[in-house]
Amino acid sequence: MAPVKKGIIERLNAGEVVIGDGGFVFALEKRGYVKAGPWTPEAAFTHPEAVRQLHREFLRAGANVMQTFTFYASDDKLENRGQSLKISGAQINEAACDLAREVANEGDALVAGGVCQTPSYLSCKSETEVKAIFKKQLEVFIKKNVDFLIAEYFEHVEEAEWAVQVLKTSGKPVAASMCIGPEGDLHGVSPGECAARLVKAGAQIVGVNCHFDPMTCVRAVKMMKDGVERAGLKAHYMVQPLAYHTPDCSCQGFIDLPEFPFALEPRILTRWDMHKYAREAYKVGIRFIGGCCGFEPYHIRAVAEELASERGFLPAATEKHGLWGSGLEMHTKPWVRARARRDYWEQIHPASGRPKCASMSTPEGWGVTKGHADLLQHKEATSTQEMKHLLEMQKKAKMSS
Amino acid sequence: MAPVKKGIIERLNAGEVVIGDGGFVFALEKRGYVKAGPWTPEAAFTHPEAVRQLHREFLRAGANVMQTFTFYASDDKLENRGQSLKISGAQINEAACDLAREVANEGDALVAGGVCQTPSYLSCKSETEVKAIFKKQLEVFIKKNVDFLIAEYFEHVEEAEWAVQVLKTSGKPVAASMCIGPEGDLHGVSPGECAARLVKAGAQIVGVNCHFDPMTCVRAVKMMKDGVERAGLKAHYMVQPLAYHTPDCSCQGFIDLPEFPFALEPRILTRWDMHKYAREAYKVGIRFIGGCCGFEPYHIRAVAEELASERGFLPAATEKHGLWGSGLEMHTKPWVRARARRDYWEQIHPASGRPKCASMSTPEGWGVTKGHADLLQHKEATSTQEMKHLLEMQKKAKMSS
Amino acid sequence: MAPVKKGIIERLNAGEVVIGDGGFVFALEKRGYVKAGPWTPEAAFTHPEAVRQLHREFLRAGANVMQTFTFYASDDKLENRGQSLKISGAQINEAACDLAREVANEGDALVAGGVCQTPSYLSCKSETEVKAIFKKQLEVFIKKNVDFLIAEYFEHVEEAEWAVQVLKTSGKPVAASMCIGPEGDLHGVSPGECAARLVKAGAQIVGVNCHFDPMTCVRAVKMMKDGVERAGLKAHYMVQPLAYHTPDCSCQGFIDLPEFPFALEPRILTRWDMHKYAREAYKVGIRFIGGCCGFEPYHIRAVAEELASERGFLPAATEKHGLWGSGLEMHTKPWVRARARRDYWEQIHPASGRPKCASMSTPEGWGVTKGHADLLQHKEATSTQEMKHLLEMQKKAKMSS
Amino acid sequence: MAPVKKGIIERLNAGEVVIGDGGFVFALEKRGYVKAGPWTPEAAFTHPEAVRQLHREFLRAGANVMQTFTFYASDDKLENRGQSLKISGAQINEAACDLAREVANEGDALVAGGVCQTPSYLSCKSETEVKAIFKKQLEVFIKKNVDFLIAEYFEHVEEAEWAVQVLKTSGKPVAASMCIGPEGDLHGVSPGECAARLVKAGAQIVGVNCHFDPMTCVRAVKMMKDGVERAGLKAHYMVQPLAYHTPDCSCQGFIDLPEFPFALEPRILTRWDMHKYAREAYKVGIRFIGGCCGFEPYHIRAVAEELASERGFLPAATEKHGLWGSGLEMHTKPWVRARARRDYWEQIHPASGRPKCASMSTPEGWGVTKGHADLLQHKEATSTQEMKHLLEMQKKAKMSS
Repeated sequence: MAPVKKGIIERLNAGEVVIGDGGFVFALEKRGYVKAGPWTPEAAFTHPEAVRQLHREFLRAGANVMQTFTFYASDDKLENRGQSLKISGAQINEAACDLAREVANEGDALVAGGVCQTPSYLSCKSETEVKAIFKKQLEVFIKKNVDFLIAEYFEHVEEAEWAVQVLKTSGKPVAASMCIGPEGDLHGVSPGECAARLVKAGAQIVGVNCHFDPMTCVRAVKMMKDGVERAGLKAHYMVQPLAYHTPDCSCQGFIDLPEFPFALEPRILTRWDMHKYAREAYKVGIRFIGGCCGFEPYHIRAVAEELASERGFLPAATEKHGLWGSGLEMHTKPWVRARARRDYWEQIHPASGRPKCASMSTPEGWGVTKGHADLLQHKEATSTQEMKHLLEMQKKAKMSS
Repeated sequence: MAPVKKGIIERLNAGEVVIGDGGFVFALEKRGYVKAGPWTPEAAFTHPEAVRQLHREFLRAGANVMQTFTFYASDDKLENRGQSLKISGAQINEAACDLAREVANEGDALVAGGVCQTPSYLSCKSETEVKAIFKKQLEVFIKKNVDFLIAEYFEHVEEAEWAVQVLKTSGKPVAASMCIGPEGDLHGVSPGECAARLVKAGAQIVGVNCHFDPMTCVRAVKMMKDGVERAGLKAHYMVQPLAYHTPDCSCQGFIDLPEFPFALEPRILTRWDMHKYAREAYKVGIRFIGGCCGFEPYHIRAVAEELASERGFLPAATEKHGLWGSGLEMHTKPWVRARARRDYWEQIHPASGRPKCASMSTPEGWGVTKGHADLLQHKEATSTQEMKHLLEMQKKAKMSS
Repeated sequence: MAPVKKGIIERLNAGEVVIGDGGFVFALEKRGYVKAGPWTPEAAFTHPEAVRQLHREFLRAGANVMQTFTFYASDDKLENRGQSLKISGAQINEAACDLAREVANEGDALVAGGVCQTPSYLSCKSETEVKAIFKKQLEVFIKKNVDFLIAEYFEHVEEAEWAVQVLKTSGKPVAASMCIGPEGDLHGVSPGECAARLVKAGAQIVGVNCHFDPMTCVRAVKMMKDGVERAGLKAHYMVQPLAYHTPDCSCQGFIDLPEFPFALEPRILTRWDMHKYAREAYKVGIRFIGGCCGFEPYHIRAVAEELASERGFLPAATEKHGLWGSGLEMHTKPWVRARARRDYWEQIHPASGRPKCASMSTPEGWGVTKGHADLLQHKEATSTQEMKHLLEMQKKAKMSS
Repeated sequence: MAPVKKGIIERLNAGEVVIGDGGFVFALEKRGYVKAGPWTPEAAFTHPEAVRQLHREFLRAGANVMQTFTFYASDDKLENRGQSLKISGAQINEAACDLAREVANEGDALVAGGVCQTPSYLSCKSETEVKAIFKKQLEVFIKKNVDFLIAEYFEHVEEAEWAVQVLKTSGKPVAASMCIGPEGDLHGVSPGECAARLVKAGAQIVGVNCHFDPMTCVRAVKMMKDGVERAGLKAHYMVQPLAYHTPDCSCQGFIDLPEFPFALEPRILTRWDMHKYAREAYKVGIRFIGGCCGFEPYHIRAVAEELASERGFLPAATEKHGLWGSGLEMHTKPWVRARARRDYWEQIHPASGRPKCASMSTPEGWGVTKGHADLLQHKEATSTQEMKHLLEMQKKAKMSS
């Protein structure tokens, strides 16, 4: 029997740094077990060895949270995926819980049952119908006795509230994470207001995940924190960003980049970018720090290494990693040995090796999401104002030609 | 008992396409099981589940060859790695053979025992001493009855010849692969001459691996083929390049790039780059087509998908991959659905997302490898002549300042 | 005798588009008549033929304003320039007036006498002393009977107010233009407040010049317009930006870019960028549209061509310019002929031809201007917030290393 | 009366460095006096003040050669330009000679009468007809008594030979310059062979101009020098390259770049690039060093400053130029003062300020010039081999899609 572990809220209340895991759907897509497009997690049932191995790598990299591989595992999504599966949603959700628990028990990690946005909400189903979807997944999480719950990857704060309300009925701690940036949700609700509403709905931890690069996500969570405090509320904060540089994203994030999802390689963050991210997240007061799409085990290890003095220990996988490149110290070439130092890697601006490529793309479809266009037009100027200017300029130029 | 499989030479003689696996040391470094710097494969013994899983992913991606994870597993290298291991070279080599065989038996793959360049050669040990090193690894390969042998990652043709001579004593088919580009080995021996010498030494398959990007490697193998034919010899050809764009490399390859080994991310090839690579390799007559550092399972799958009509089948992992992005066909956003087509991905020039980064780097230490500088100065102009000009110009400018 | 021309205010009141000239100091530096560093205009006296020729080129390109080449021609600056001149400030100012008048009389252009920021203000001289400097230049402008006056290139709104107050005593129309961007002056006074204060000081035209690229300057002038209207005031608006792309500038503009002033070439705007600029400036309500550093005659011609239908005529220099590239129609190569169309040039993203170069630089010295650092820290987030984040991140990373 | 000057051949025989002028058609296009497309020099007659001023700027920058502004001033081209001129070819050629002589007499410069490639040759007129065209221009040069003659901008060695043969009849020194790169002329005749043929035809100076960037042109002239020496001949060498970076050009040079001719700005060389060019040209033995399209007076000044110790003097325009940025020494900001040093500017890699732009373009129409395609296919591999590979790859990919 596994020893009783400290719960997520106890850890955060104690001021501990909790490190999340990385991005399962993208990592397993590259390993051959998830299909880009549907992005559903049936591999939890069909290829448990692959999912188990990825859990283990994140644990070894320093993660304290094993999120069940149940992204898009709601029944409405599974039916919707464009290819019939011979396995049920319950089978997938249960298998995912078992795998997460098995590996969590190999170290100091908690199991988090996860739900995310649903096709039902997007197709305007009622609150009752949407909540029923979340309830079905929750039943599995209760049966499998996960340690806490995460409602993540929501673009609309209303649906996130509904999810939190359902998950709260379990009595387990609930975290709520939206896939938004500093411009807020797709109806233009600001990060600060989103966060306050989620705390009021019952979330004890709020934050953002996916869609934007680490520094942008940290800024969005900082805005959430400011909003929660302005509203006289209290919460813990989490962030699980992309491992892709997205300086050119519009409000809907990396989905609208022309490179999504099959040509994002040049944007992948280095381990050194992750050090900067972990430090910045820590500085603004975020204590649940993990990753989403693009995060591989070595990215999570870098987060754990950056925060090693705060946590008091290094992750297991550091046995295979010279801190700040020190593993190069014995290289035969003197100029490679000279790279075995912190400032070299901290300051490097890696070349793309792609002479035909730009540094920024023009997001497609920006501002034209059905039903949101007019809302966006009235929103305040934000940090992406310049990008908008450029885009508008382009459009106008075309129209007037 | 596994059925008797067609051997490597029979396959190549029959004109079949043989797909190699990808890069174990780099992939396992990112997963937390190999240390950058020493790059030794003790994980074969200490973390077999991680190595087994990676073998499976490459098998599933379409690989016909399971190379034993024995890179740098010679005794002299293991002693040399800057950290004492409590396990012996034999234990590592044996464990690696067992893992490769276990997974090879799950599909239509052969096991290839691999040796590579040694510290002994670099420190000017005698032919006898260097050959003894290879012999020790070969004993394990014979005991474990691998299907064929690969001498790979040699920068000096002489050492490669010695390796081939040792491996030939086993009676098994021998492939020889050097980590050189179109400029030849580090003594300036051209690819054509290297190849002819390796064939004369007994190699039935010759080619290059590592150090350069796919198109550069294909060009080098083409030069090998021309050299072999000019010499009136016969061979099969293999190529296992980097999955990094390296237009700016000097003759020693990506080692000298300032980004090596911890900031190569922006250079990672997309799956669509791999389609072009596979086609080009096939066109110049190479039939053993695989990958080296940077190749993840999805890269190998792309090679297998490009050559599906030549091979007559798609790899298993295609069940999780819409060909040419077709998995996006049901996306909710019309502009993302519009990406579900071949020409979109074939023509994409992905942005780096890194506005502070250049497209090319200046290799460090170029041309100053001890003892080779003068040789290089007398070498014929090659395709990197322009790069040299730039570098010389820089040096001169500095000197005269 | 020249016919009596419509004055600047009459033109603007009538809704006419007035086109300014381009950047004399930078253009004449490249032609060999101005020294970078001091940037003083003694060539008006020593090499009149060069200055006259540049005036003529701008007139021919469509400019309605011949600004006297008197930038930095105040006595305190001329003494300060690090090299004694044998000619007096009065001689330079008078010669400049004569040249501007001579060429203005060759077409439909007005002469504008110009003053700019002084070393006296920066070294904290009194209001009386600073005003005395402006008065001395004004005496020449009155003697030579210029058509109107421009106080331009001010980084501090207070000094600009003083200049306007002095110039107003002449009874001539006064324009006031600051070298600021959307973040406001160097004390953090917003563009809107700067503009309102300048109008209150007596300026009939307000705007910005230099320091930032066209689109950024247009945004700043738009903020000025909003500020003037919010304050219940009325004014006309002018913009005379750089002809360099500066997406990476901090609040002090292109001076802080590492490329300033001798490596700005890759940032030079094309004529097609100028079409977009002219259209955007017109759309936000600016009617005095010209250029500053980097603007060559062909850039001004592009502005005049874009606004040809609004003005009712094309500039003289269009006789040597096929609109939208139509001069290429008879080229012998079909693919060059295919470039003789508007959408080709409107959509082109020109390559840099510089594989070692980034798209953005890190401004030097940002935020550390003596005495302003603390002010800046309390300023509101603006559109360059992201850039600041990046810079802070870098600084922090360095400090903690 | 002007004193008798040393002739061009006497100077070169004495080992002197002769500095050429810059690019008239491009500079005057930007100033509003030449139309892109036809590129004809009627401004010599219609706007002499503009042409005279540009001559003066180049003289002041250090040029020893005033080339008559007679590019494309042959009768067949003038008729062909798509717009009838009311002035004759003789009027243009005479006016150009007068302007060049007037300014040459203001300093130590020679007048060079220039002819270039003709539409007659391209439309397959006979040798007699083409030579008659050259003869007509030569008559003016003889009447106006120019100091020497230049046959420049030839893409076909045969036409260049005809031009040299005509010019030689005058008894004046003849220079021959082709607009080719290291790949040779458009029939694939190598630079070395072109040069030898031109020397045999009577040219005393041979070299290249236009079409490629400085370093590429220097390489081509070096190949010419090697070819002349291999043939046992003797000559002097000249180079007058573009002031644009063209690492991505195909054999026809910058004409085929998609940015030609209206979006080349990001490629413009800095003055520091010109120092490197001048040094490199000098080192390979070229003594007539000038510029072509894109060269502004400050570029020529940089050449003259780099070679000041070899020549024994600085150019007049250096009075307005702090060597290596020393004019910044008294700047108020310490970080700008810190740029007043050679190594800062020598090492700078200027950013493009264009985040949507690549560093390299794909030349259009490459390899498909009518009649030359098959020749090109059989040509030897050259330094642009990689570019070709990429292009072929792209084409193939498109065909097979």
